Amino acid sequence: MNDPQGPPGTPRPQIPEATVGRLPLYHRALISLHQGRNNTVSSEQLAEMAGVNAAKVRKDLSYFGTYGTRGVGYDVEALLGEIRSDLGLTTEWKCVLVGAGNLGTALISFAGFRERGFHVAAAVDVDPEKVGTRIGDLVVAPQSSLEAMVREQDIAIGIISTIPAAAQEVADELGRCGVRSILNFAPTVIEAPEGVLVRNVDLASELEILAFHDQRRSSARDRRPAV
Amino acid sequence: MNDPQGPPGTPRPQIPEATVGRLPLYHRALISLHQGRNNTVSSEQLAEMAGVNAAKVRKDLSYFGTYGTRGVGYDVEALLGEIRSDLGLTTEWKCVLVGAGNLGTALISFAGFRERGFHVAAAVDVDPEKVGTRIGDLVVAPQSSLEAMVREQDIAIGIISTIPAAAQEVADELGRCGVRSILNFAPTVIEAPEGVLVRNVDLASELEILAFHDQRRSSARDRRPAV
Repeated sequence: MNDPQGPPGTPRPQIPEATVGRLPLYHRALISLHQGRNNTVSSEQLAEMAGVNAAKVRKDLSYFGTYGTRGVGYDVEALLGEIRSDLGLTTEWKCVLVGAGNLGTALISFAGFRERGFHVAAAVDVDPEKVGTRIGDLVVAPQSSLEAMVREQDIAIGIISTIPAAAQEVADELGRCGVRSILNFAPTVIEAPEGVLVRNVDLASELEILAFHDQRRSSARDRRPAV
Repeated sequence: MNDPQGPPGTPRPQIPEATVGRLPLYHRALISLHQGRNNTVSSEQLAEMAGVNAAKVRKDLSYFGTYGTRGVGYDVEALLGEIRSDLGLTTEWKCVLVGAGNLGTALISFAGFRERGFHVAAAVDVDPEKVGTRIGDLVVAPQSSLEAMVREQDIAIGIISTIPAAAQEVADELGRCGVRSILNFAPTVIEAPEGVLVRNVDLASELEILAFHDQRRSSARDRRPAV
């Protein structure tokens, strides 16, 4: 495969954040196509599966030097490999989860992570009652062992599923331990420790978007003139 | 409050989907400002909290007829009320959850939903071992009672947290029961039944975005010329 970024030392092109945000949509669609034994996919078909328009698909993929063949489309396996490589998913990413409550337990066993190249390799909790409990292949460790676990296992990603009040402190601690990226599921916005990337997942936001559309549909029905 | 959409019968303006997608970010920031007893907020401050730029905040809010006061900003309480009203969150939305496994259990008890106006009012599962178990205030019901529960309680939103293989069938059943919106957490893309809005939540996508940036930062370090 050609390196679209050119030889080492060449600055990589800036990829728009919106394009980065759509790569997981393409990745998921391609996994499904690959499982369904499809060899090729058109930009239109990929667009429909990802919920975007076809011009955007072509533009997004062109940032990575990937162009389909006219009249044939993209080779599914090759494109899947390229997207995985773009996303840095050619090796498994180890994650540590902090907060083994209901949500944490669910995230540890969530099949969707493993399939996409992420492995929750360690879990810690402050609650002595949770420490020692087994979740899938994991045994919950005390939070005091966080740093040792991160360094021994060279863990790059921290997942926070604590109560909101504890989230910032946990993020700061993860940063001190050498974790480079944090995914925060606690329903509060946290600030990134220096040198750490943070993404705040807002589970309620999807419900709000549904509510918005539902409300507008209902009021459109109410506004329809009587016949 | 003025109705920015004009008198009944006037077609409502199209709100760009990207704007709709940012409303939950503003909503969450405003909840936090309100809890912190802030009376006003500038578009710059709101932009920083929501992770967008200030011009975008002003443009987004202008679709709803909301303009801040120059040199003062927006009134937090008034803007919170308007956003809630725009999102249709002036009354509580009832949700039914299908699939009371680890993720379902976590979603039922997730504090972030209740705070934002969503109430999981019913939960069902096909597994006889799960039926009858108590999760918070709820008792898990058999999936065969889904339609009766949706109709009796006038439930508008379905949340799917089943295994991927069951998700499409459950979505179709929710559609037949009269549910108008579906949030799918199963790691598979489902097609919307007729007349139903579906949003597929992809928990792994956020990890992929972190991996993308981490990989690029690492390779930028590797590519730095030796000194």
